[in-house]
Amino acid sequence: MKILFTEAVIIDMVDGAKAIQNGNLAVVDGVITYVGSALTEEEQDQYDEIVSCKGKAILPGFVNTHGHSAMTLLRGYADDLPLQQWLENEIWPIEAKMNAEHVSAGAHLAALEMIQGGTTTFLDMYYNMDAVANVVEQTGLRARLTRSCFSFGDDALRKSYLEEATSFAEKWNGSANGRISTMMAPHSPYTCDPDFIRQSIEKAVELNIPIHTHMSETKTEVELSVREYGARPVEHLDKLGFFDIPSLVAHAVHLTEEEIALLAKKNVKIAHNPGSNLKLGSGIAPITQMIAHGMRPSLATDGAASNNNLDMLEEIQLAALIHKGQHQDPLAVPAKTALAMGTIYGAEALFLDKEIGSLEVGKQADFITLDLTQAHMQPRTDVISHIVYSATRTDIQDVYVQGRVLMKNREMRTIDAEKIIFEANQAFENLRG
Amino acid sequence: MKILFTEAVIIDMVDGAKAIQNGNLAVVDGVITYVGSALTEEEQDQYDEIVSCKGKAILPGFVNTHGHSAMTLLRGYADDLPLQQWLENEIWPIEAKMNAEHVSAGAHLAALEMIQGGTTTFLDMYYNMDAVANVVEQTGLRARLTRSCFSFGDDALRKSYLEEATSFAEKWNGSANGRISTMMAPHSPYTCDPDFIRQSIEKAVELNIPIHTHMSETKTEVELSVREYGARPVEHLDKLGFFDIPSLVAHAVHLTEEEIALLAKKNVKIAHNPGSNLKLGSGIAPITQMIAHGMRPSLATDGAASNNNLDMLEEIQLAALIHKGQHQDPLAVPAKTALAMGTIYGAEALFLDKEIGSLEVGKQADFITLDLTQAHMQPRTDVISHIVYSATRTDIQDVYVQGRVLMKNREMRTIDAEKIIFEANQAFENLRG
Repeated sequence: MKILFTEAVIIDMVDGAKAIQNGNLAVVDGVITYVGSALTEEEQDQYDEIVSCKGKAILPGFVNTHGHSAMTLLRGYADDLPLQQWLENEIWPIEAKMNAEHVSAGAHLAALEMIQGGTTTFLDMYYNMDAVANVVEQTGLRARLTRSCFSFGDDALRKSYLEEATSFAEKWNGSANGRISTMMAPHSPYTCDPDFIRQSIEKAVELNIPIHTHMSETKTEVELSVREYGARPVEHLDKLGFFDIPSLVAHAVHLTEEEIALLAKKNVKIAHNPGSNLKLGSGIAPITQMIAHGMRPSLATDGAASNNNLDMLEEIQLAALIHKGQHQDPLAVPAKTALAMGTIYGAEALFLDKEIGSLEVGKQADFITLDLTQAHMQPRTDVISHIVYSATRTDIQDVYVQGRVLMKNREMRTIDAEKIIFEANQAFENLRG
Repeated sequence: MKILFTEAVIIDMVDGAKAIQNGNLAVVDGVITYVGSALTEEEQDQYDEIVSCKGKAILPGFVNTHGHSAMTLLRGYADDLPLQQWLENEIWPIEAKMNAEHVSAGAHLAALEMIQGGTTTFLDMYYNMDAVANVVEQTGLRARLTRSCFSFGDDALRKSYLEEATSFAEKWNGSANGRISTMMAPHSPYTCDPDFIRQSIEKAVELNIPIHTHMSETKTEVELSVREYGARPVEHLDKLGFFDIPSLVAHAVHLTEEEIALLAKKNVKIAHNPGSNLKLGSGIAPITQMIAHGMRPSLATDGAASNNNLDMLEEIQLAALIHKGQHQDPLAVPAKTALAMGTIYGAEALFLDKEIGSLEVGKQADFITLDLTQAHMQPRTDVISHIVYSATRTDIQDVYVQGRVLMKNREMRTIDAEKIIFEANQAFENLRG
């Protein structure tokens, strides 16, 4: 099947964000075969289907590099509470009751919301991950999946966690026509002891997959690490060899200049979660300093219990706004950088940038279209500025992964939205008891 | 005409944000006559029209307490620049070319975007304000309008500014069936000399209207005030008597604890512009400290050139997020407070809280409905949390002002959207030359 998308403003995210006016994008069997100015009529005749994208931008699908999709079930369940009270009295007790069916219902709701918001690839760390992998397979999304592990409990329990994470990673890596890849994920340095983290690293090396964890999210966590291990989380993880393999850390809010330099040197990937970090009162990650060190931080929503949505455009907008305000510098994180963080830097963070993240010949046809005709996108000045500072998630019109359409003019093509919403509410009622 | 809105989740914003399930709202001749639980069938029979709002919330329309509507024409025209360069090289030169027709085109575009985003009342300070007043009259919105004045130029010019501002305020106050009210607005303490500000205050007293200005937006502005007047802007304005009459200041980013105490004592109203303050790198206003002093700060978008949209839901979300992040306190500005800032506190800031800002018997029927059925609003846990942290502007379904419908199921009823968008682009092209 050879499809040509015409008359679009194409933002390819190759060598920075720039707009090709009246651009054409060709897709053959799920792979991009042409991106550029309009083809001649004769050239266009060679395609099986021509899809006009007049009044729309085409850009790479958003890449959400850290989250817990099943937690959409807990959206709005417990807000505006102190972090420990929120976790210990509200989130953990209800999470303990979540079985595979709950996880499936939550992941379905997340998939629906992500597709509607233009996310084509997401990272998910949770448990009952077979259920999530099935949702990815069914819905046509792309994902980097991992079974999140704590090291609590006796030796048998710890071993069973690690085995489950390893067998999940092995079983699903490369599945769903290559749309699913996996990784290892010890939950965090404060919920996993050094031995457990070391074993997780070994497994990642064995399976040749990257590793992921929560790191330096809160000030308390950093203080705890110093008390427990005589080292802040970065030094602690570095000593364990975490950064010697392809690694991605979520949050990275509380870092020193030296830590940023080390992370940059070791080419550690960052999942910046501006919405979640703000809402939980964790702080504002030193993104401008990371960029100054040559890092390319990605963007993520985190779980919906701490965001409270999975809207990547909102994270892009937050990334473009909050660092300017915090540093009182209108040049911090320009619109083009924020858009890169949500697309190509995200692909790099998931070690998938050879396949996705930009619109280039040979890459997978994972892309979205965005309506440029609405009032809030006028006048027609700077399309990248409009997308970053003014667009809203319902401007996303079409979503494609591997050239397959998941949403067309905001109609879901692989998902029954009504059923998913009904079942998510049922699952939540069942959970709450 | 007696209309009853039924089956809604009503958030009345009376004594805090709370949700009435299966609520009814009655409107007779543009005024609210009932808010509460469902009426009996017999009681319902007395109404001319019953409008089911199943699956929707009803809340007061948003009140945008600071902006420059014509500047929608400059959206995306010049972004990501240092403030002075942005103002002096980009914004002021193009603004100098804006005539009444440009202002009309920009204000129309703003009105369209504001109605689509659930704003029912806005403050506008600009020039060629007759054009804006005409837009308010035509579109059915409610507004507090003011001719913004600089004190540059010779005595004749200064005098003409003040006369224009005064005659505008006098002419339009109470017009459009009471939907237009006016105020005086010397632009700022750094663009208006003390004499000019004093004269503006006198005129406000004469006409019995409030006064508005930009204040303490940037660090530079505060330093300038100290150099020029030996006093920071708050002390400077206080000495001039600005706070001795009903007054509203926009921004108020750079304040000391003593200044906050003074503003609280004098009952000065605040227009907090989180999006604009972040984007221009001005900083983050001390909203939590203001609230601790008993103040009730309102929310505003500022002009679209520095935001870049007029989306009050986004400002509400930013207000609920950024102060938590900045203070590393998840309890800062709870969802309910943020919603109050966008509604009832806004009405108070414009000195219109006897008429609007909450859904109460006797108040004007300015309200909006919001779709609760979308994926990102599930599961049905906490509707106020969902609206503040997860909703998006296209969730706004219907917009009423004085009981007149301005938008119904997202269709514009008083505005030709296509024509406005076409004319706004024409006006911008004409401006850019």
